[in-house]
Amino acid sequence: MRSVSVIGIGETKMGSFPDKSLKDLILEAGNKAIEDAGIEKERIEALFLGNFNSSYWCNQSHMGPMAAETLGMQDIPTIRTEGACASGSLAFRQGLMAIASGMYDVVIIGGVEKMTHQSTPVVTAGLASAADYEYEVKMGATFPSLFAMIANRYFYEYGNVRKEMAMVAVQNHDNALLNPDAQMHKKITIDKVYGGFPVAYPLTVYDCSLVTDGAVFVVLSATEIAKEITDKRVVEIIGSGHGGDSLTLHGKTSMTSLNATLKAAKEAYDMAGVKPSDIDIAEVHDCFTITQIVNTEDLGFFEKGKGARAVAEGKTALDGEIPINTSGGLKAKGHPIGATGLSQIYEVVTQLRGEAGERQVKKDINIGLTHNLGGSAATCVVNIFKGW
Amino acid sequence: MRSVSVIGIGETKMGSFPDKSLKDLILEAGNKAIEDAGIEKERIEALFLGNFNSSYWCNQSHMGPMAAETLGMQDIPTIRTEGACASGSLAFRQGLMAIASGMYDVVIIGGVEKMTHQSTPVVTAGLASAADYEYEVKMGATFPSLFAMIANRYFYEYGNVRKEMAMVAVQNHDNALLNPDAQMHKKITIDKVYGGFPVAYPLTVYDCSLVTDGAVFVVLSATEIAKEITDKRVVEIIGSGHGGDSLTLHGKTSMTSLNATLKAAKEAYDMAGVKPSDIDIAEVHDCFTITQIVNTEDLGFFEKGKGARAVAEGKTALDGEIPINTSGGLKAKGHPIGATGLSQIYEVVTQLRGEAGERQVKKDINIGLTHNLGGSAATCVVNIFKGW
Repeated sequence: MRSVSVIGIGETKMGSFPDKSLKDLILEAGNKAIEDAGIEKERIEALFLGNFNSSYWCNQSHMGPMAAETLGMQDIPTIRTEGACASGSLAFRQGLMAIASGMYDVVIIGGVEKMTHQSTPVVTAGLASAADYEYEVKMGATFPSLFAMIANRYFYEYGNVRKEMAMVAVQNHDNALLNPDAQMHKKITIDKVYGGFPVAYPLTVYDCSLVTDGAVFVVLSATEIAKEITDKRVVEIIGSGHGGDSLTLHGKTSMTSLNATLKAAKEAYDMAGVKPSDIDIAEVHDCFTITQIVNTEDLGFFEKGKGARAVAEGKTALDGEIPINTSGGLKAKGHPIGATGLSQIYEVVTQLRGEAGERQVKKDINIGLTHNLGGSAATCVVNIFKGW
Repeated sequence: MRSVSVIGIGETKMGSFPDKSLKDLILEAGNKAIEDAGIEKERIEALFLGNFNSSYWCNQSHMGPMAAETLGMQDIPTIRTEGACASGSLAFRQGLMAIASGMYDVVIIGGVEKMTHQSTPVVTAGLASAADYEYEVKMGATFPSLFAMIANRYFYEYGNVRKEMAMVAVQNHDNALLNPDAQMHKKITIDKVYGGFPVAYPLTVYDCSLVTDGAVFVVLSATEIAKEITDKRVVEIIGSGHGGDSLTLHGKTSMTSLNATLKAAKEAYDMAGVKPSDIDIAEVHDCFTITQIVNTEDLGFFEKGKGARAVAEGKTALDGEIPINTSGGLKAKGHPIGATGLSQIYEVVTQLRGEAGERQVKKDINIGLTHNLGGSAATCVVNIFKGW
């Protein structure tokens, strides 16, 4: 397959923006990415848009042409992809394949979500549609309850890691303090997590990711022409994997080792020809604190059952052996569903370029990984990036 | 690019099925396609699902893994695509590219929609989300009103074709009478169309496509392995094009020559190395009767302004020089939004195989075309097929 690279990135601040429309968010992030790439719009051949549920929250489907028209590129073909919280990564992967296949040379990928203007029940119902309506949602399940079951099963199999889950939250909040685009700039403590509003045992509100408005765009080109377009450090996509599993939690063979992650990671590592120990930094899906721990094990960073201890030992901190979620993660940077996967890519590219400011990882870094889940791990996309 | 062929097709009957769930529809159409291909499920590597708005109508997003789990293939990666009424064709095109790029050898594409259980206002609001909410829907526009504007502008530029629009409806109803899967088995007359419930001048209810539940699945493989899997006539995808235009109707440079169709058609014809006159049969997007007329011109079957007369002269009839919508079209076969593009492909493949029963085109046919629009022509996918 033809090599593909990231040549431009742009994102909005993450947060609650009652005065900004979907179009405002798209315009800001899209133009930033195009400007960052230093490319004329006329060279962009197609747009791939990740959006989870604007149909439900904003009365707006068919977001591909809407985004292209908003960015003044209405002449190009567009597509919207949806795979719950992995919608943005799926758009990215389709754009990657479209260049790899030879169909296009330069494409733009976007992700956007606007949800904070809705009431909590409407936000919750919209999010719950990413689970199985007949088997799960009708019975009262929401995502906090599904991931709480995963946490409880993990406790049963590997011991109680309540404290380490809280440390994931503390660490990600610490990182977000250094990220100007993060939604949450608030230092927290383990006791604060323990004492948070109970959501679904053992999860308190501090174990849960945020409700966020935001948009992120990324410009991709064939690597062979990247250097003629941009002066920045070119970041090549050396590996990409896409794994699937049952939509239902009960349909999965394990609740503590997620098949979708295992398959996406294997595909990405094989394509890149690298091992987990070669990864310098990673953004890992932390919709809940337990999710980050399980995923860092399934990605091969730590042995099964040892992911929690690794957090406690500081291995995943900004100055640790493999910094995880330097952006603040879904937990504190924010979780603008359709844009989340691209926000992870934004962070890894920023770090690999050495442009992360106060939160820049101090050691030399060359290889970064993004891991994005949809639903209770029914969809997973893993990408591996190398800076040249 | 590597050649890709259709090796299996399956569809449900189109209609109103209060007792069937999304899963029931998926199960029926998916299993029919797999059985038609004569393939073991284990050989299918990925699933691409077109769905427009089950999030809104059925509380169900994240339909990719739901479909895979329902079909007993939960181990494969999945993606949902959405581009309004072109959602199914977009899924098809992503599956095509995925095989063409070398990523996979065999994939399954599905499309499904369930909407008849909702009240008319909820159906209408869900459909309207495929237009621009801020500029169009908030101001009261719905799709009948947008396409009524197109009809009126067409009258202004090319003369009043009210009668020929009615003849499109009569012809598509005639074809549907011969299609056992069609939703509408009802012979109509021009006077009946004229006297139908007025929707948006000049459109009456008989100028409008149907509200439909249904599902369609298609199995694709690399052409080089198609013959070892299936005994049926292999139908190769020799051309595919994807065009975009502004989401808003006011943003388009013309209302009577649709850029998205022009661009998708050019790309598909160029890739296939064929001309409009080489096409033996076509399924053309007829969300409204005027749409079919405009599109048959933009596809190059008839000169601009002559598409209506061609209908009156019987050129598009089952025994005409280029039979259009032998299935009955969106108008009478039905319009299960996310499945519609795949339903067109189902018909063309069935005709090219010579398996269309009573509605089989009598002359020798080798090349067929499908044309699928999203919104007021903001998205268009054209595919060209050849039977070997």
